[in-house]
Amino acid sequence: MSLLTPLLRTHALTDFFSDEQTVQGMLDFEAALATAQAQCGVIPTSAVKPIVDACRAENLDFLALANAAANAGNLAIPLVKQLTQCVKRVDAEASRYVHWGATSQDAIDTGMVLQLRKALAETDQRLQRVMQALAGQIALHLQTLMPGRTWMQHALPITFGLKLAGTLDALLRWQQRLAEMRPRLLALQFGGAAGTLASLKSQGPEVAQRLADTLDLQLPDTPWHSQRDRVIEVASWYAGVGGTLGKLANDFALLMQTEVAEVSEPIAEGRGGSSAMPHKRNPVTCAAVLAAVQRMPGLMATLYAAQIQQHERALGGWQAEWETLPQLIVLVGGVLENSEVLLRGMQVNTQKMRDDLDITHGLIMAESVTQALAVFIGKADAHHVVEKICHRAIALDCPLQPLLENDPLVSQHLSAAQLTPLLDPANAIGSSEHFVRQVLARYQEQGNENPLSP
Amino acid sequence: MSLLTPLLRTHALTDFFSDEQTVQGMLDFEAALATAQAQCGVIPTSAVKPIVDACRAENLDFLALANAAANAGNLAIPLVKQLTQCVKRVDAEASRYVHWGATSQDAIDTGMVLQLRKALAETDQRLQRVMQALAGQIALHLQTLMPGRTWMQHALPITFGLKLAGTLDALLRWQQRLAEMRPRLLALQFGGAAGTLASLKSQGPEVAQRLADTLDLQLPDTPWHSQRDRVIEVASWYAGVGGTLGKLANDFALLMQTEVAEVSEPIAEGRGGSSAMPHKRNPVTCAAVLAAVQRMPGLMATLYAAQIQQHERALGGWQAEWETLPQLIVLVGGVLENSEVLLRGMQVNTQKMRDDLDITHGLIMAESVTQALAVFIGKADAHHVVEKICHRAIALDCPLQPLLENDPLVSQHLSAAQLTPLLDPANAIGSSEHFVRQVLARYQEQGNENPLSP
Amino acid sequence: MSLLTPLLRTHALTDFFSDEQTVQGMLDFEAALATAQAQCGVIPTSAVKPIVDACRAENLDFLALANAAANAGNLAIPLVKQLTQCVKRVDAEASRYVHWGATSQDAIDTGMVLQLRKALAETDQRLQRVMQALAGQIALHLQTLMPGRTWMQHALPITFGLKLAGTLDALLRWQQRLAEMRPRLLALQFGGAAGTLASLKSQGPEVAQRLADTLDLQLPDTPWHSQRDRVIEVASWYAGVGGTLGKLANDFALLMQTEVAEVSEPIAEGRGGSSAMPHKRNPVTCAAVLAAVQRMPGLMATLYAAQIQQHERALGGWQAEWETLPQLIVLVGGVLENSEVLLRGMQVNTQKMRDDLDITHGLIMAESVTQALAVFIGKADAHHVVEKICHRAIALDCPLQPLLENDPLVSQHLSAAQLTPLLDPANAIGSSEHFVRQVLARYQEQGNENPLSP
Amino acid sequence: MSLLTPLLRTHALTDFFSDEQTVQGMLDFEAALATAQAQCGVIPTSAVKPIVDACRAENLDFLALANAAANAGNLAIPLVKQLTQCVKRVDAEASRYVHWGATSQDAIDTGMVLQLRKALAETDQRLQRVMQALAGQIALHLQTLMPGRTWMQHALPITFGLKLAGTLDALLRWQQRLAEMRPRLLALQFGGAAGTLASLKSQGPEVAQRLADTLDLQLPDTPWHSQRDRVIEVASWYAGVGGTLGKLANDFALLMQTEVAEVSEPIAEGRGGSSAMPHKRNPVTCAAVLAAVQRMPGLMATLYAAQIQQHERALGGWQAEWETLPQLIVLVGGVLENSEVLLRGMQVNTQKMRDDLDITHGLIMAESVTQALAVFIGKADAHHVVEKICHRAIALDCPLQPLLENDPLVSQHLSAAQLTPLLDPANAIGSSEHFVRQVLARYQEQGNENPLSP
Repeated sequence: MSLLTPLLRTHALTDFFSDEQTVQGMLDFEAALATAQAQCGVIPTSAVKPIVDACRAENLDFLALANAAANAGNLAIPLVKQLTQCVKRVDAEASRYVHWGATSQDAIDTGMVLQLRKALAETDQRLQRVMQALAGQIALHLQTLMPGRTWMQHALPITFGLKLAGTLDALLRWQQRLAEMRPRLLALQFGGAAGTLASLKSQGPEVAQRLADTLDLQLPDTPWHSQRDRVIEVASWYAGVGGTLGKLANDFALLMQTEVAEVSEPIAEGRGGSSAMPHKRNPVTCAAVLAAVQRMPGLMATLYAAQIQQHERALGGWQAEWETLPQLIVLVGGVLENSEVLLRGMQVNTQKMRDDLDITHGLIMAESVTQALAVFIGKADAHHVVEKICHRAIALDCPLQPLLENDPLVSQHLSAAQLTPLLDPANAIGSSEHFVRQVLARYQEQGNENPLSP
Repeated sequence: MSLLTPLLRTHALTDFFSDEQTVQGMLDFEAALATAQAQCGVIPTSAVKPIVDACRAENLDFLALANAAANAGNLAIPLVKQLTQCVKRVDAEASRYVHWGATSQDAIDTGMVLQLRKALAETDQRLQRVMQALAGQIALHLQTLMPGRTWMQHALPITFGLKLAGTLDALLRWQQRLAEMRPRLLALQFGGAAGTLASLKSQGPEVAQRLADTLDLQLPDTPWHSQRDRVIEVASWYAGVGGTLGKLANDFALLMQTEVAEVSEPIAEGRGGSSAMPHKRNPVTCAAVLAAVQRMPGLMATLYAAQIQQHERALGGWQAEWETLPQLIVLVGGVLENSEVLLRGMQVNTQKMRDDLDITHGLIMAESVTQALAVFIGKADAHHVVEKICHRAIALDCPLQPLLENDPLVSQHLSAAQLTPLLDPANAIGSSEHFVRQVLARYQEQGNENPLSP
Repeated sequence: MSLLTPLLRTHALTDFFSDEQTVQGMLDFEAALATAQAQCGVIPTSAVKPIVDACRAENLDFLALANAAANAGNLAIPLVKQLTQCVKRVDAEASRYVHWGATSQDAIDTGMVLQLRKALAETDQRLQRVMQALAGQIALHLQTLMPGRTWMQHALPITFGLKLAGTLDALLRWQQRLAEMRPRLLALQFGGAAGTLASLKSQGPEVAQRLADTLDLQLPDTPWHSQRDRVIEVASWYAGVGGTLGKLANDFALLMQTEVAEVSEPIAEGRGGSSAMPHKRNPVTCAAVLAAVQRMPGLMATLYAAQIQQHERALGGWQAEWETLPQLIVLVGGVLENSEVLLRGMQVNTQKMRDDLDITHGLIMAESVTQALAVFIGKADAHHVVEKICHRAIALDCPLQPLLENDPLVSQHLSAAQLTPLLDPANAIGSSEHFVRQVLARYQEQGNENPLSP
Repeated sequence: MSLLTPLLRTHALTDFFSDEQTVQGMLDFEAALATAQAQCGVIPTSAVKPIVDACRAENLDFLALANAAANAGNLAIPLVKQLTQCVKRVDAEASRYVHWGATSQDAIDTGMVLQLRKALAETDQRLQRVMQALAGQIALHLQTLMPGRTWMQHALPITFGLKLAGTLDALLRWQQRLAEMRPRLLALQFGGAAGTLASLKSQGPEVAQRLADTLDLQLPDTPWHSQRDRVIEVASWYAGVGGTLGKLANDFALLMQTEVAEVSEPIAEGRGGSSAMPHKRNPVTCAAVLAAVQRMPGLMATLYAAQIQQHERALGGWQAEWETLPQLIVLVGGVLENSEVLLRGMQVNTQKMRDDLDITHGLIMAESVTQALAVFIGKADAHHVVEKICHRAIALDCPLQPLLENDPLVSQHLSAAQLTPLLDPANAIGSSEHFVRQVLARYQEQGNENPLSP
């Protein structure tokens, strides 16, 4: 853990990509390999237990591993050497069969897949919890009026529920993509030195099948060591989820600005203070999310570039993935954890939301008037007329309604009594509730409790 | 078309993202909107024909459109104005109902989806043709021996068929992902000014449904204007396909190097010459693919960053997508077209491939000997012994076999007669054919002709 | 020009990277080459005029050039062919000496340098104008109080002049970097087929010197075709300037939000309207800047990756630069032009800035009180005490001053009379003016008129 | 240190960006602040020693710091709290003056500058050593003939010295840029809570000057907390150097391919072996360099995007720099160290280089013949004629010279006796030596020993 881990990454997914887990992933491969090969008669059954017993990360000297990797070019070579020594101390005969017929990339890539499996399971749960918190807030704010904002300017009224439902809608799609991706991703890599399993002679496919079964992974049609589409797929999934939650955090921080103050981060003792300014309540959670999310495009650029791997094992591209993919995923872990904190504990100032609808003295309702007027004079002309009145209202800093009432053309078609409800934000949220209910219904279809259900 | 389009992008997908098609996509939205709204009684039926008739890109003044967009901030605003004028010239009454209840982003995003639909259909066909060409070459080279290379060094023998099958295997996964993505992607965007369809009052959902039906698009549960996961998904699909084919082109260029010369690009009059060197046959097709593919990580970085869109319509992020997504897709179009050219016409020098297996005088077969020796003395010791003999062979620049035969430990376990077949590359391609046949079988399962079938 | 050029790129630098200018850049190289070689006696003097006369972009068939480039792999090969034909029509003998001893990359890279020289001159002027507009606004707002904001929350008072001076300070550094970079960048590329000038025998250096003189470029110590640090340097300069102005535009858009409304984009007829909402005044200029700036990190990623060029001429990396570098520069052109528009015409609501200092009822002055209290009880304790009072003020939604006055500890050290000036923002802008004057003085030192000078 | 640090980052720059050094950088700021403020009479002189004495990283509880940072949003807030406690234990009065008038970003940014200063000094030395090793190899290979390669195909002969001189030429430019950048970069950040030094009243500039003097940093005209051009400049310098050395490593790995085998990495016991293949000598050093360099474009994309920092302190962008900049620099540290290893110990097979010039049976000399023939029939015709003969030579797999001799047009102008020297690579390296000597002379001018000097 580095000094910035609790802030930027939290603990959600960090442990799955620790040095220990990376080593254990490779050792799990080696243990399963021995097991599978003994089942196929490739190595003696007596070799299995000593090998499997030795395959525990705590048996290895990590410092020596790190230093030896600098010479070897990867972690698997010194790992296999250390493992062989461990086994040898117990059973010299068994130690002959360590890593039999495999190559470094088999251990490293399959180890990575095993790490990803655990990370995905945790990610799925974290995502579920974020969606649950989100669904709860959506239900609470089904009717909460607030300004919709486009180009960072007031546009029309919306509900806070609708705003949040957009995020849930996207997360439901990410969940669906995760379900589609998972079986493709959780696949064994086992090809031997050049992807032919040559050293296993005719027994290659049989061993591969047993190995996949032992590890409970898919057996792919062919080894995939130099085809990195699975890496890209899982990485782009994580970066996409990060982006969706980054948008949420960015909106939240915008809504939390001093002048807007429609929401506030959960209050916790000592959270969000300033070293200089005693009054500050900084959006620390949003900042942590945004700092993490801003690093994802760059990390993705690295992984896309790393797809170009030379021949049967790359020189640079594969190695560039090793730290980049875990960095990305662990940052998303922090994003998920922080987003849940934000969503569970956020403070919503519904009164300020409602008040903000009035600060333009009716301008936010201008489209509503236009649309009513358009029935009589067409959309383009109505737009033109109302636009001019709006500009006048801005120039004079006066409310829109009297100007509309006094306009000869407008008043010809719309009476003051007709204008009043047109200028009421509560009448202008259109299908907001319909959309929210549809999103929540889909959330429910995926096995969740709908917070709107009786 | 710019000067570099034929080289870098070809014509495969270029036209789908021309200015004309961008405008037509928006106009198709406007036409369908009028149709759907008339069906729902929102606008008069008589307005439909004049509007629909006017919705043709050639009716618009593109230069005026471009200049007006600089003031408007997007293309839809001046497009609606020009369209309204067009309709007005024919039917002033009908012109009142142009773009009724919609907002710019509805036209721009749905227009983009319509462009993507066409592009995806063409992409699918192009991908199919690439896979067909690839499958043909795989079948031809099922048994073609060549050096497998790891870290850009000879590793073990493989077959050229196996090498190519790795690419087909990945493309089959991309095809599967495309099928999963398509219904999610081809969704209507229709939300009005702030995503509530406020201007349509209670008729929003009904109009939206009709509009989706008219355009034959999915109707999403809620408008998605500020949730860009669909954009990320389609973009990352394209970039991923680009990466897979970029790996192929990079390997090809490596195999085509003067000293390797195992393959050559298709010969065409005037293709690949040099302005200075008359003997040159440059891998122009590979260069075009690689130039395109190298730009994709950066384009993806832009799109990931653009996910962070503010509130109900972004200030910067959305606009950053407008040229970036088409650029990416059109570059992949060139990659697909060039890859097909390469795969259909490539020249394979199978003799050079076979000869290259011998240039290390047997070193490439060292693992085979190790594995045989390992049965007697264990993997680690066998590795150590053979490694030392290999280093001696390199130092002395002499063939491996005599050194092995003369080594006391090796000769104790393996006779010269046993060593000879161990050193024959043809005996050492392991499960290559098995893997290739599995990939081709999956190709066949997806409705294609298996080139190995009788 | 594409449909989005006026919006995203404007016309500032666009023309320098048109197809015509790209071709002309190469032709200028070819013309100068003939001139220089005749001076050295490498080609006959009689060949110069026919070649130089033919070197005009309008002589070439661009469509044929584009299509031929797809076969040739670059533009220079078909350009030389067309040019040779042009010369031949006038003087067959002279046509023999077109492109003598040069290679494609010589023409393309030197052509690019010639384009860059023009673009840099224009960029320098544009930057100068931006700085001038900025300096003017800084002088106007030397004393304009407004809230300083950190973490997107009110922090302490600042002046608007100080805020803008930060941008000027950075631009002055970019100007300095430009001056340092220019001589390094404006260097001839001339190496022949493999960078040895072999075809010129012993006359290579002499021809190179004359060629550099003719083109008024630096003659580098060795050809630099596969060393792209100059490309990276100029690109990162442009992206950096883009980032500095992107920060300005982003702050501007934040200040222009409906609730903040401290500034507004220049009003121009038809600028910033909405297709749905007649009241909208969208920050179109900021959006154009931000859309452009958001694409720069990705474009830079492409150029950094393209540095890895193989051997004496790259396969992919060089070609990836061709459109990427111009795209980047031309986008910065738009950023410069739009920034100048923004800075010259921006509306500043100084009253709203002053009013916003009061919306937290004194909280923004909390550090000031802390600092005064710290003299008596130390920084940490003072911070703690005032922080608690601030939190109470927020919870009670009441002004800070009475709470301070009633606090036993505070009132022990600070009387009400002492508190009042401590809570006046006008007393709390510290060294703002000093900093602004220093930046303007440096601006003046670089030959500009200081808007504060009498 | 993580498991992959020795491989990917080595120890060159790693320690400068350890957690300890990050903390110490901030503490050095705090110590200097107390010293400077006492000199100005802002705090009591008696407070200095207790504060300065406490400012040692080993005094702090790092785990507590990390966990508190998650709440605080940055490291400086809990660091100041811990530091205050440390001082308090010794001198309660002095503890009142810890971090007086400063803000978190002052400590974090200035701390970073102090880390950068040390890192730059070490980088400069490392770069110097790389250049020295490079200059040595250049001198050794001033005359070493080898194939020049363009588009990854043989082009014309070059010398290995010229190839390496291209890298030295670029590194000399990077060294020059470093000298220009350093004074801009090594600047104090000191602005207090909002960049006004408000809490220091009129003493701000005086304290700032003393603080800059104490730390031996430049005093900028205005605080630069939200202007990140310095960060971009130093980062792009490092990434650029990485790219230059990445190009070298990539070329090296290409030259080391089994079929090319013109160079080899230094041999070291246990370096570059394979877990499966005993004969392998993998280019581990090149792989480490390339893996590092491939991550740089993405890291740069992050930093460019992070330039857009909101108002007076960012929400996300600043925080995104914290780990990204050190990651980048430390990776370049590994690149520098590995490049030096490569350059000092590389094995060059000059015979293989010479042999490779012959594998095309004279084709590599085709330009030479063309140029001689062009004197008689013009460049375009000569190119065309020789190109046809080359294609025939390829088709027939026969040497070029007899075909040239038997060609009626060629033989009309060039006798066999004239052709022979034209086809000798040793006659065709043009100005290679001239270029190399120029680069070495510039190297010498910058105070280095020229390896060619007597």
